[in-house]
Amino acid sequence: MHRMTTLVLVILLSASIGQAASQTPTETRMDIDLAVERIIAAALADDHAHDRLGELCDVVGPRLSGSENMSRGIDWAVAHLRADGLDDVRAEPVMVPHWVRGNESALVIEPWRHSLPMIGLGGSVGTRDGGIEADLLVVSDFDELEARADEAAGRIVLFNPPWDGYGKTVQYRARGADAAARHGAVACLIRSVTPSLSSPPHTGVMHYAGGDTIPRIPAAAITVRDAARLERQHRRDLPVRVRLNMNAQTLPDVQQANVVADLIGWEKPEEIVLVSGHFDSWDAGCGAHDDGASCIIAMEVARQLIQLDLKPRRTIRVVLWIDEEMTQAGAKAYMETHADQIDRHVVAIESDSGCFAPAGWSVKGDSLTVAAVADFASRLDSIGAAPTGAGWAGVDIRRLNDAGVPGIGHRVHNDDYFLYHHSPDDTFDKIDPHHMRQNVAAMTAMVWMLSEADEPLPRSE
Amino acid sequence: MHRMTTLVLVILLSASIGQAASQTPTETRMDIDLAVERIIAAALADDHAHDRLGELCDVVGPRLSGSENMSRGIDWAVAHLRADGLDDVRAEPVMVPHWVRGNESALVIEPWRHSLPMIGLGGSVGTRDGGIEADLLVVSDFDELEARADEAAGRIVLFNPPWDGYGKTVQYRARGADAAARHGAVACLIRSVTPSLSSPPHTGVMHYAGGDTIPRIPAAAITVRDAARLERQHRRDLPVRVRLNMNAQTLPDVQQANVVADLIGWEKPEEIVLVSGHFDSWDAGCGAHDDGASCIIAMEVARQLIQLDLKPRRTIRVVLWIDEEMTQAGAKAYMETHADQIDRHVVAIESDSGCFAPAGWSVKGDSLTVAAVADFASRLDSIGAAPTGAGWAGVDIRRLNDAGVPGIGHRVHNDDYFLYHHSPDDTFDKIDPHHMRQNVAAMTAMVWMLSEADEPLPRSE
Repeated sequence: MHRMTTLVLVILLSASIGQAASQTPTETRMDIDLAVERIIAAALADDHAHDRLGELCDVVGPRLSGSENMSRGIDWAVAHLRADGLDDVRAEPVMVPHWVRGNESALVIEPWRHSLPMIGLGGSVGTRDGGIEADLLVVSDFDELEARADEAAGRIVLFNPPWDGYGKTVQYRARGADAAARHGAVACLIRSVTPSLSSPPHTGVMHYAGGDTIPRIPAAAITVRDAARLERQHRRDLPVRVRLNMNAQTLPDVQQANVVADLIGWEKPEEIVLVSGHFDSWDAGCGAHDDGASCIIAMEVARQLIQLDLKPRRTIRVVLWIDEEMTQAGAKAYMETHADQIDRHVVAIESDSGCFAPAGWSVKGDSLTVAAVADFASRLDSIGAAPTGAGWAGVDIRRLNDAGVPGIGHRVHNDDYFLYHHSPDDTFDKIDPHHMRQNVAAMTAMVWMLSEADEPLPRSE
Repeated sequence: MHRMTTLVLVILLSASIGQAASQTPTETRMDIDLAVERIIAAALADDHAHDRLGELCDVVGPRLSGSENMSRGIDWAVAHLRADGLDDVRAEPVMVPHWVRGNESALVIEPWRHSLPMIGLGGSVGTRDGGIEADLLVVSDFDELEARADEAAGRIVLFNPPWDGYGKTVQYRARGADAAARHGAVACLIRSVTPSLSSPPHTGVMHYAGGDTIPRIPAAAITVRDAARLERQHRRDLPVRVRLNMNAQTLPDVQQANVVADLIGWEKPEEIVLVSGHFDSWDAGCGAHDDGASCIIAMEVARQLIQLDLKPRRTIRVVLWIDEEMTQAGAKAYMETHADQIDRHVVAIESDSGCFAPAGWSVKGDSLTVAAVADFASRLDSIGAAPTGAGWAGVDIRRLNDAGVPGIGHRVHNDDYFLYHHSPDDTFDKIDPHHMRQNVAAMTAMVWMLSEADEPLPRSE
């Protein structure tokens, strides 16, 4: 009896401080606080998202843009979103690059013969003509390459920079091949962009920015342990000779799609709260942390609200972006397809830092926007998702943010992210089901609050 | 002046409570406590052992029994031990197995095509005839295989047992192929024998124990993450089809050697304190933890004593065993070569649990032996090497122990050992220089005390 009395009181109080009853579409409409409580309780008791990520990883697999797996993944997501009961689900066509890895391998020839685990970098050319065999020039950084430029011709340059955070170390992956080719190197190897001494090789996109002026040479990553050893052997003046075989090639662009699914708002259907992750992944591993889990979480936001019979005031749009990893073709296409709708996006949310314990929100917008998000987030303290600050929101929503749409990036405690990122180790077994539940709770509650707010988030000028 | 006075006092006091002056061969002879202090101080200030392990890993490389690298390693060790100034250094011939890995690879064909990182198990036959392609039967353990025995014929059996400690889980590596072949399987895969979700595949020896009654089928290990995924896919009733190529073969035995080096005792040259590690390793990685570091530590015991001008009463014998990993041919040969000398071994020490922080000693002998070692070890508390208990001492010294020679196993805090063990990740970068210094200190001091004791360790009946 006591518990029932309390519940009735809470509902009555909630109604009095919440939205007027005339604004609700159904009898289930309720105070925000109570809805957030219900959302969190439901999400923390539900492993549906984790199970679905398992299905994505086991049945669809890795999702390199342009690949058959990626096409199957798009069909899979559309079917699931429709079955979940969203109002409008479609695959919006996007032309995407079609880079194909092909067979690849490396062999150390000297000082003793053994296979060298490697992974080609995304966008790299192949070796052609039966492979490349050459002595290594090992350098710690771009400066050392410049200092030893006269030793590079005809060699394979190995960059072995110390880990100095992703932003700095990734420069060698992005620009290493051009830097080496400028001095006549025949191929480029990099130490994987990870702090882990035990990780398999990590891939990721690289760029040829030299136009016709710099030859395009093959580029691949090796493990941190092998890079360290090859550097030590090189500095001992041992002969260090490597054979590289890569059949990588870039085929003509193919049509794939952003998956876009709307849960249409009952009061302001034209106002859009966009929640997203990128659906493509690298072909190593299965893109569990990067960024499959975020896609499943975005899908789960809508499914949870439907299950709870929480009908949003504004339209909640789930977007699974294509081709974040290579050229962001999906993000660009969205801006064109939805050009007449951009200013009706209330907010764009992206999650792309792995699925770890929630850590809050990073807001792309002015101080009023940050303050408004912080106010919503304060209701998420019990699951660690209250901290909010100004910052970067996401690669795929950057163009929306640049057009004035407030951006929110989902923060997680991602100290371990770069152990797995872009590697064969980014697999389903690395996902903690409890973190998955917590992130679904945080994201669903945040999206609900953004949908229900009387005023949309302040926009940047 | 004050420090000098103290030093003189310490030396005078030490002389009075230590050995009588008439027992010392030179003026440097001193009390055990003071010698142990000097040994620890010198070892903790010296990175020679770490540097030498780097040379072993970078210049010699991995040391599979029968391989060219192993032969080079033997020459390398003999040359270094001679240069260090030991009295009698020789390579004692041993016929060892010559298993050759050859090229090997695996490919998942269904549910989607991708390369499957693998490593053949030591002693496995190859696949011949262009490889084996078959559907998987995935089982958790031997019991499940027996329950599903009628599904095994023509399939590749994958054992995916949970990690349950090395002793239990390694059974699948050792006996899995026979168990699968008994029911008509065409090859055997195992989950690597490691608790790590991120490790590359781990190899190790396997056995065909069926004589002519069970066909010899190829056996290899895959990563924990891939085994987990293939099991999930199999239990989802997806088609899981794998292609395995292994050129492994066993060639005729070849002659290699135990490296044996004596620092001859001034008083009791016929009494032997044996300190050892095994010099062979698997071909993945470079055998840094398993067991290169222990070999370097054993070498360093003699070198440190020579450097400190500490001349032992008994003979200190450094042994680098050949072929621990496959058949213990080195250990067997030693018993024959030194048959007339076995009862003059005062003690045999082995280190083979990786190079981590010292944790003490495991003594194979009766309670009096354990108590005597514990008494010596009590002087090593400052470096964590005091704890002493009864237990296993080592694979290579087992035959000596069985013949009554007390055994001492070097214990370390090896929680991480099976992350690296038998894998490409057992590399020099995983060795903490401070642990190396501590282990040299502990081992050198222990060997010195065993050499100087008035009475040899009590022998088992």
